[in-house]
Amino acid sequence: MNQSNKQATSIMVRVIEKARENATKGGGPFAAAVVRGDEIVSLVANSVWFDTDPTAHAEVNAIRQATAKLGTIDLSDCELYTSCEPCPMCFGAIYWARLNKVYFAANRADAAQAGFDDDLIYREIVLPHPDRKINFENMSVESRLIPFQTWNNNPDKNQY
Amino acid sequence: MNQSNKQATSIMVRVIEKARENATKGGGPFAAAVVRGDEIVSLVANSVWFDTDPTAHAEVNAIRQATAKLGTIDLSDCELYTSCEPCPMCFGAIYWARLNKVYFAANRADAAQAGFDDDLIYREIVLPHPDRKINFENMSVESRLIPFQTWNNNPDKNQY
Repeated sequence: MNQSNKQATSIMVRVIEKARENATKGGGPFAAAVVRGDEIVSLVANSVWFDTDPTAHAEVNAIRQATAKLGTIDLSDCELYTSCEPCPMCFGAIYWARLNKVYFAANRADAAQAGFDDDLIYREIVLPHPDRKINFENMSVESRLIPFQTWNNNPDKNQY
Repeated sequence: MNQSNKQATSIMVRVIEKARENATKGGGPFAAAVVRGDEIVSLVANSVWFDTDPTAHAEVNAIRQATAKLGTIDLSDCELYTSCEPCPMCFGAIYWARLNKVYFAANRADAAQAGFDDDLIYREIVLPHPDRKINFENMSVESRLIPFQTWNNNPDKNQY
C-alpha cells in the first residue's frame, strides 16, 4: 500500500469511527469528511434527528461545514470521504459543490441490507412525472420566467 | 378554475415573486414554499451565495425551515411549491421529507434556457461509477459495516 492509499484508508477509518459513534447516540450510522490535501476540513455525522432536518445527511453536513469554513461554494480542490455510498440528494450536493473525488466505504447493497434503502429514490428519479410515487405537477403560471429574466438583467448577479 | 386551483395558483404566484425579489439582490432566481392545508409553513429563496452553501437551494431551504418549525422530519401532510422543477439534490430531499405533492412552475427546459443546467446531474446520476465526471471509488475498509451493526443493536435508535 503506498503512502497516498495509506492516508486515504486512515481518513476513512476515522470517518467510519465517527459514524459508529453517532449510531451509539441513536443518530444515523453515517459520517463524512471533506479533505483538502492533508487537511481534514470537516468531519461530521448524520444529524437528521438531532436537528429535525431530513436534509442533514452526513455528506450534506460535511459540504455545508466545509464551504462555510473555506468561504467558497467551490470545493473542486477537495475530496469527499463518506462511510456509505451517497443517496441521490447527496449525489446532487456533491456535483453542486464540484468535489474532485468521492471515496465511499459501505456500498448501496450494504446499506439496503442494514435497512437503509436509497434505491427507491434512485429508481424514482429516472421515471417520468406521472409514474412517480410523489406527484409532480407543472403549473405553467404566466410569471414563471420573470425570475430568470430578472437574474439575467442584474449586472451584480452571482454566477454558478 | 375551481377554488383549490385558485389557491394553488395564488401560492405559486407568491413563490415566483419571492424568486424574482431574490434575483434583484443578486441571489439565485429560485424560491419554494412548504404548504399544509391553507397554511404557508415556509416560503424561502435560494441562498447559495448569501450563505456560501451550495446545498441552500430554495427547496432544501423550504424543507429545512418547515421541519424545524413543525418539529418533525415527516412532511407527508404538506405540499411543496417551487418556482422551478427541482434538481436531483432537491428531488432527493423531497423524497426524504416525504412531501405529499410537488407543484413546479418553470420546467427543466426553461431553466436550461436561462443558463441553469441541472440536466448534467440528471444524466450523471444514472451512469456507472467509472463513467462519471466525478470519480467515485469504493474503499471496502474492514470496519465499514460496524456503524450499521451498532445502529441495529441500539434499542434507542431513531427509525427512518
